[in-house]
Amino acid sequence: MTTVKSTLPDLARQVTGDALQDTLVDLLGLSLIAKQAHWNIVGPRFRSIHLQLDEVVATARSFSDTVAERAAALGVSPDGRAETIAATCGVTGPKEGWLQDADVVRLMVEALATAVSRLRERIATTEGSDLVTQDLMIQITASLEKALWMFQAEN
Amino acid sequence: MTTVKSTLPDLARQVTGDALQDTLVDLLGLSLIAKQAHWNIVGPRFRSIHLQLDEVVATARSFSDTVAERAAALGVSPDGRAETIAATCGVTGPKEGWLQDADVVRLMVEALATAVSRLRERIATTEGSDLVTQDLMIQITASLEKALWMFQAEN
Amino acid sequence: MTTVKSTLPDLARQVTGDALQDTLVDLLGLSLIAKQAHWNIVGPRFRSIHLQLDEVVATARSFSDTVAERAAALGVSPDGRAETIAATCGVTGPKEGWLQDADVVRLMVEALATAVSRLRERIATTEGSDLVTQDLMIQITASLEKALWMFQAEN
Amino acid sequence: MTTVKSTLPDLARQVTGDALQDTLVDLLGLSLIAKQAHWNIVGPRFRSIHLQLDEVVATARSFSDTVAERAAALGVSPDGRAETIAATCGVTGPKEGWLQDADVVRLMVEALATAVSRLRERIATTEGSDLVTQDLMIQITASLEKALWMFQAEN
Amino acid sequence: MTTVKSTLPDLARQVTGDALQDTLVDLLGLSLIAKQAHWNIVGPRFRSIHLQLDEVVATARSFSDTVAERAAALGVSPDGRAETIAATCGVTGPKEGWLQDADVVRLMVEALATAVSRLRERIATTEGSDLVTQDLMIQITASLEKALWMFQAEN
Amino acid sequence: MTTVKSTLPDLARQVTGDALQDTLVDLLGLSLIAKQAHWNIVGPRFRSIHLQLDEVVATARSFSDTVAERAAALGVSPDGRAETIAATCGVTGPKEGWLQDADVVRLMVEALATAVSRLRERIATTEGSDLVTQDLMIQITASLEKALWMFQAEN
Amino acid sequence: MTTVKSTLPDLARQVTGDALQDTLVDLLGLSLIAKQAHWNIVGPRFRSIHLQLDEVVATARSFSDTVAERAAALGVSPDGRAETIAATCGVTGPKEGWLQDADVVRLMVEALATAVSRLRERIATTEGSDLVTQDLMIQITASLEKALWMFQAEN
Amino acid sequence: MTTVKSTLPDLARQVTGDALQDTLVDLLGLSLIAKQAHWNIVGPRFRSIHLQLDEVVATARSFSDTVAERAAALGVSPDGRAETIAATCGVTGPKEGWLQDADVVRLMVEALATAVSRLRERIATTEGSDLVTQDLMIQITASLEKALWMFQAEN
Amino acid sequence: MTTVKSTLPDLARQVTGDALQDTLVDLLGLSLIAKQAHWNIVGPRFRSIHLQLDEVVATARSFSDTVAERAAALGVSPDGRAETIAATCGVTGPKEGWLQDADVVRLMVEALATAVSRLRERIATTEGSDLVTQDLMIQITASLEKALWMFQAEN
Amino acid sequence: MTTVKSTLPDLARQVTGDALQDTLVDLLGLSLIAKQAHWNIVGPRFRSIHLQLDEVVATARSFSDTVAERAAALGVSPDGRAETIAATCGVTGPKEGWLQDADVVRLMVEALATAVSRLRERIATTEGSDLVTQDLMIQITASLEKALWMFQAEN
Amino acid sequence: MTTVKSTLPDLARQVTGDALQDTLVDLLGLSLIAKQAHWNIVGPRFRSIHLQLDEVVATARSFSDTVAERAAALGVSPDGRAETIAATCGVTGPKEGWLQDADVVRLMVEALATAVSRLRERIATTEGSDLVTQDLMIQITASLEKALWMFQAEN
Amino acid sequence: MTTVKSTLPDLARQVTGDALQDTLVDLLGLSLIAKQAHWNIVGPRFRSIHLQLDEVVATARSFSDTVAERAAALGVSPDGRAETIAATCGVTGPKEGWLQDADVVRLMVEALATAVSRLRERIATTEGSDLVTQDLMIQITASLEKALWMFQAEN
Repeated sequence: MTTVKSTLPDLARQVTGDALQDTLVDLLGLSLIAKQAHWNIVGPRFRSIHLQLDEVVATARSFSDTVAERAAALGVSPDGRAETIAATCGVTGPKEGWLQDADVVRLMVEALATAVSRLRERIATTEGSDLVTQDLMIQITASLEKALWMFQAEN
Repeated sequence: MTTVKSTLPDLARQVTGDALQDTLVDLLGLSLIAKQAHWNIVGPRFRSIHLQLDEVVATARSFSDTVAERAAALGVSPDGRAETIAATCGVTGPKEGWLQDADVVRLMVEALATAVSRLRERIATTEGSDLVTQDLMIQITASLEKALWMFQAEN
Repeated sequence: MTTVKSTLPDLARQVTGDALQDTLVDLLGLSLIAKQAHWNIVGPRFRSIHLQLDEVVATARSFSDTVAERAAALGVSPDGRAETIAATCGVTGPKEGWLQDADVVRLMVEALATAVSRLRERIATTEGSDLVTQDLMIQITASLEKALWMFQAEN
Repeated sequence: MTTVKSTLPDLARQVTGDALQDTLVDLLGLSLIAKQAHWNIVGPRFRSIHLQLDEVVATARSFSDTVAERAAALGVSPDGRAETIAATCGVTGPKEGWLQDADVVRLMVEALATAVSRLRERIATTEGSDLVTQDLMIQITASLEKALWMFQAEN
Repeated sequence: MTTVKSTLPDLARQVTGDALQDTLVDLLGLSLIAKQAHWNIVGPRFRSIHLQLDEVVATARSFSDTVAERAAALGVSPDGRAETIAATCGVTGPKEGWLQDADVVRLMVEALATAVSRLRERIATTEGSDLVTQDLMIQITASLEKALWMFQAEN
Repeated sequence: MTTVKSTLPDLARQVTGDALQDTLVDLLGLSLIAKQAHWNIVGPRFRSIHLQLDEVVATARSFSDTVAERAAALGVSPDGRAETIAATCGVTGPKEGWLQDADVVRLMVEALATAVSRLRERIATTEGSDLVTQDLMIQITASLEKALWMFQAEN
Repeated sequence: MTTVKSTLPDLARQVTGDALQDTLVDLLGLSLIAKQAHWNIVGPRFRSIHLQLDEVVATARSFSDTVAERAAALGVSPDGRAETIAATCGVTGPKEGWLQDADVVRLMVEALATAVSRLRERIATTEGSDLVTQDLMIQITASLEKALWMFQAEN
Repeated sequence: MTTVKSTLPDLARQVTGDALQDTLVDLLGLSLIAKQAHWNIVGPRFRSIHLQLDEVVATARSFSDTVAERAAALGVSPDGRAETIAATCGVTGPKEGWLQDADVVRLMVEALATAVSRLRERIATTEGSDLVTQDLMIQITASLEKALWMFQAEN
Repeated sequence: MTTVKSTLPDLARQVTGDALQDTLVDLLGLSLIAKQAHWNIVGPRFRSIHLQLDEVVATARSFSDTVAERAAALGVSPDGRAETIAATCGVTGPKEGWLQDADVVRLMVEALATAVSRLRERIATTEGSDLVTQDLMIQITASLEKALWMFQAEN
Repeated sequence: MTTVKSTLPDLARQVTGDALQDTLVDLLGLSLIAKQAHWNIVGPRFRSIHLQLDEVVATARSFSDTVAERAAALGVSPDGRAETIAATCGVTGPKEGWLQDADVVRLMVEALATAVSRLRERIATTEGSDLVTQDLMIQITASLEKALWMFQAEN
Repeated sequence: MTTVKSTLPDLARQVTGDALQDTLVDLLGLSLIAKQAHWNIVGPRFRSIHLQLDEVVATARSFSDTVAERAAALGVSPDGRAETIAATCGVTGPKEGWLQDADVVRLMVEALATAVSRLRERIATTEGSDLVTQDLMIQITASLEKALWMFQAEN
Repeated sequence: MTTVKSTLPDLARQVTGDALQDTLVDLLGLSLIAKQAHWNIVGPRFRSIHLQLDEVVATARSFSDTVAERAAALGVSPDGRAETIAATCGVTGPKEGWLQDADVVRLMVEALATAVSRLRERIATTEGSDLVTQDLMIQITASLEKALWMFQAEN
């Protein structure tokens, strides 16, 4: 079977590939968490947060595609299957059932803070392995930190 | 906490809610399977199928939103979390790693056929419980059967 | 004067025509109620509900056009005049004057629930008289039930 | 309950508020009359006038929104409920049932001429009470006089 | 040669396939009839009906594509060739040469009435064989009945 | 009945009218052939050619409208009825049933080559009768020759 | 002062320049005639012809720009001043005052026929002086002949 | 013949009608002047002013349509024929032939200043005859004064 | 240096110029105040008011451009520099630092009420000096009064 | 009151916050300077530079929003009030009154050069405190340097 | 390997192919020349000509694509490689380094005049070999002559 | 003659300028190579790769513009003339004549790999001379590596 050759040496590819795979799973997890909240939220701020959550979904889906294709471009097969997300995603989501609006805000603040903190570590890690990937990590961080501010400002 | 009241009697709501929840999980699973193949496919028909898979993703994502909001509209909390998909999705996806193009076509034919077959049962089930939901099931079936034809025609 | 000939036999046309006329009046009434609330609402959730009400107006206006033209297409003259709405609309609106935001939410939940309940009866009625009209009733119901959920979730 | 404070002194607000309320009811009435004709017209000029009527509907709906929000902005609660339109609208509409195309043209000429004549009185009235509202009355008059010309030219 | 497998059992596929094939031919025939009239119409109502005919063409072409692809999706090869339309179309068109506007209106009323009447039989037939196809037949009927009303109202 | 007067003298109008009528029938035939292949194609290149065929359909439909209206503009009644296409179209289409992708390519090469060859004769013919019509024939030829190249390059 | 040099020899430039200047004046005159009728038409076909006239205005204005810039590109200063149009335009327009719809149709048929007849002479003239300009004359003729057909078909 | 009835009393209609007719002729004249300069300008600032002139053309054409339709709406037949413009337009245009860029700027400053000065008189005149028309004169003045500033700033 | 000549006499130009300059500074000040609040707001209504504030910014920026260009068109140099705004703006903004959502609403009600009150004086002032400028002042007032109502309704 | 928590440690946040605040003030100042020139410029290159200045305004406004929201996202309250800009902006603008085009070009070259020079220092400063903010500084610099080149090339 | 068959006889194909190949190289060369000037121009007319040059680039690129695909459609392999352009392009470009604006205008006048002159020869040549290709040459000539006029007018 | 002053010190400008010039030539070369393949490709995957190549052309053209304008912004005259590309481009293109589809894929893999390898060296080089330029090199690399993956995946 065809395999895609990497433009990076082996070690750099290993380090970069791990960072991309972990980011992929966090972003897919985040998109499912935000959709779950989008559908189950109740309370007086329903509409406003219902819409705000869909912006997080759009951001997370779009970056997950860029991240997975970046991995493929480096010769690393990305893994975004449901069982992989369930087993390895670093971000915690809600319990089942309806969710009060204030609880959704707290949940999203926590989830985004965790995702940002894990991304900042990968900015450091990829500095030495692949500057192109680091640049992508920086963009995702900027975007999630803006979303984090907006949910904090809702508190 | 607020709960959403149903416009359906209890039994009809139970039956309809189950059909919607199962459909939601199948569609979210299908969207993750098609994205996984979209990223990992290799072979001479790469570009053509790479694009075709993203149309399945768009269809599955769009209907999953309609289905989840229909459940909420009937007072049934939808559950689209990663662990729920991993545990209860009725459609089988690929192993990890790169995927040969011909294998992707076979995989999608099988996955779509399974999804259609499960939807047709729910068309029968919801006939007696909620005609509005049945109408939605019919639309999703029409759409997935068209996708199924296109992957069969690729064989 | 020209009259439009029906593609339905007389009895079916009578039953279907009544269902369409009643639906037309409910939808026009609903659009006026939602506009009245759109203009008179006050309170901390002003902006959010002000916008949400205009989506109900758009939905009701658009379906009222489809329903009236469906009646005409079946040879039944539709009646959407102000005095007919005032006399026969089945949905109850607000008193005159400013409306507190929480009262608007309660009012819309009640109005939409009434409209949906009346539509579900017409879905049953038109099953035997005209499947094309039944299909339209099903679509309107789905749309109003989604709006109903959203106002309930606001409570 | 919150009430909206006016930027006008009491007397000016009273006079201006009455002019706006009367205009609101005339415009909403006009939109229902034009829609009724849009649905019930028959005759060789069906298509042409069917479309022309919808332009009157769009104009009347759009200005009714501006007028009602102008009233609210001046601290006057607008009243656009079905029973208010049925009771106080100054413009006369059609009988129930199908309408011959030539009759529709005559009907619209009369309805628009009445609406314009009433608006011209309000332009005079609001000259002394609120120039901003007068400017709005002038715009509506210009628009309805153009529609009036077009229906006259159809004769 | 590859053949497309059906998701329906044999008998249901036979019945549904026949209904789709007959509809395809009627729609293609209707699109050619409406174009023929679009090009050959003369008389004082030329422009108005010239445009209205093109809306019928657009509707018929768009549905013919959906119908043919639905047949293919069920494993039934659709046949839309000129000789098949000429031999089996159930809708009657104009003689050759220029057409007076009033004659075009009468011709279209008759052609659309025939097409609708044939479609209503297929709605009954496909009730038992494939609800997805029935839903499509219902949509086409609604659309053609609206066009039929508009040409009747022109009379 | 009204007849459209020509801006050409009688002989030139006869020659030009024949060229336009023959082109109209060839283009309508071509659009039906390409649609038939669009729906019935199977094989590994399905998606790519399925899309490419629809571009031929769009081209043929658009030019058929221009050609027919050009005929009408010259006082010649165009004839694009199904029976006329079946009887006089110079381009040969497929048998009924599914079509292998390679066969579709061959079929389209042949059909387009025939259409181009017939058009080139008409470019010569209309040189003396109407330069405006000749210019239109030249444009259609350029467009079909580009399509012909693309199907040849697929071989 | 700067003057624009021509890419044509002197005689060809003279002949071509005259053809372009005459066409410019005819087109500007035609646009003013069609606008005059657009504003002054009355009668039952008001709306339909009111719109059709504006299409002639758009066509004439657009081609007048191309023609004038073509003249300039050949080093011939174009003259489109009001007094030049009044003095040299070859197309006859309406008297002052309101115009009955049937009279407008007759007027436009005559005006367009005159414009076409003059253009066909210039196609012959420019054959020998500049093929690029001839091609432009051919396009304008095709466009005006289509408009001529449409007004004839209205008769 | 049908005549359009005015919503103004006779004297007011006379005064207002004269103001509108004079404005119509000035605007049509201005659009022809600006186009003439657009085509004949030469010099280092060619492109910049060539584009700026077309903005004046667009403004003048758009307002001429509004003005003429306002006259018609008041029962006054507008006269925008070439001979009327040549005889009564109050704005002076260029000589024939190429125009140096600096001369074009001076010409446009003068033409726009004249047009504005004549409009300001009509603002005073229509104050007593029709406030709706006065409002239109005010808008045109604002727009032409802005264009006047821009050509002055070019000096 | 070039100076722009005014179409107004000296005194009228002085009065009108002052009104425009004061309005310019108020609008620029308002746009900075609304942006400051847009960035610093916190609290449960964050998102809703965050968006509403940006609509005020867009309105104020757009009108500031129209006002400044109107001044220039009258030969009055507009002054919108930061130091001028800081020194002469009549509208009071927030302290530095984060702002609670309810405080933002109060602040905007006050700022908009002040701006409206100052504009109403200028409507009176410009009545005698320039009706074109008065018309602009009226439009700005209408727009800010609508924004004022919306912030009052939020209380 | 709620305060937004930072994802950066205290010292890094202090350094990054200062860089963002200084950049915000420079960008807001630059937007006011460019608008002032946009309104007051006179001379032969008026139109060209008038348009070019508005591109600087759009760039500066857009980046000021990104910078202020980045500060908020890091828990630093941004300060963009008029008095702060007047007191602390590092970029020098024009005197009051009309501005000759060549002077505007010189002024903008100087203003942009200053802004770029100050940004390059902040690129160095934020290297050690926050790579995400540094990336933003780099983008702003690239954009302003392009604008700077364009004004230099005008010289 | 596949070769594309021509619809032209051998001699005609040779002549036409040469004309197309020469045109392709001239157009690609022209696009590189215009881009080089776009980047290196300095002087007071910088912005205006900088933009005008990009329109030449767009025109040249778009026609080069049409020309190359026309060659391929005739079975002639087009050659647009850098070395071919450098060796055979008939149009002369600038020296390296910055270019004064007046020099750019002279350069473009010369380059376009050369390109046009060479195209006019090919219009003559292809008259006898392929009218479709001749029509394309005529269109390109018209377009480049318009650009040539504009650069001449800049002189 | 005007020269553009750099915001970088001399040495940094030299190093950065060389990196930008080399990148410009590689990108222009790449765009010509991909166009050559776009026109000459034959074989079963014709259409798919024909389209994919045009995406590379669009990417290369767009980045070449950014790179050249970045050089100009730093005071370095960019050189993109045909002879410079032919002499110094580091990427190897195809021989003349038709190209088999599989050969095109191999060719593009090689060309893109070379371009990426050369860009990665320049990322290192510009780290010390200009971070803004380095950021641009990183973006180009990311984009070309994605294209490289896609052509590899085609193998």
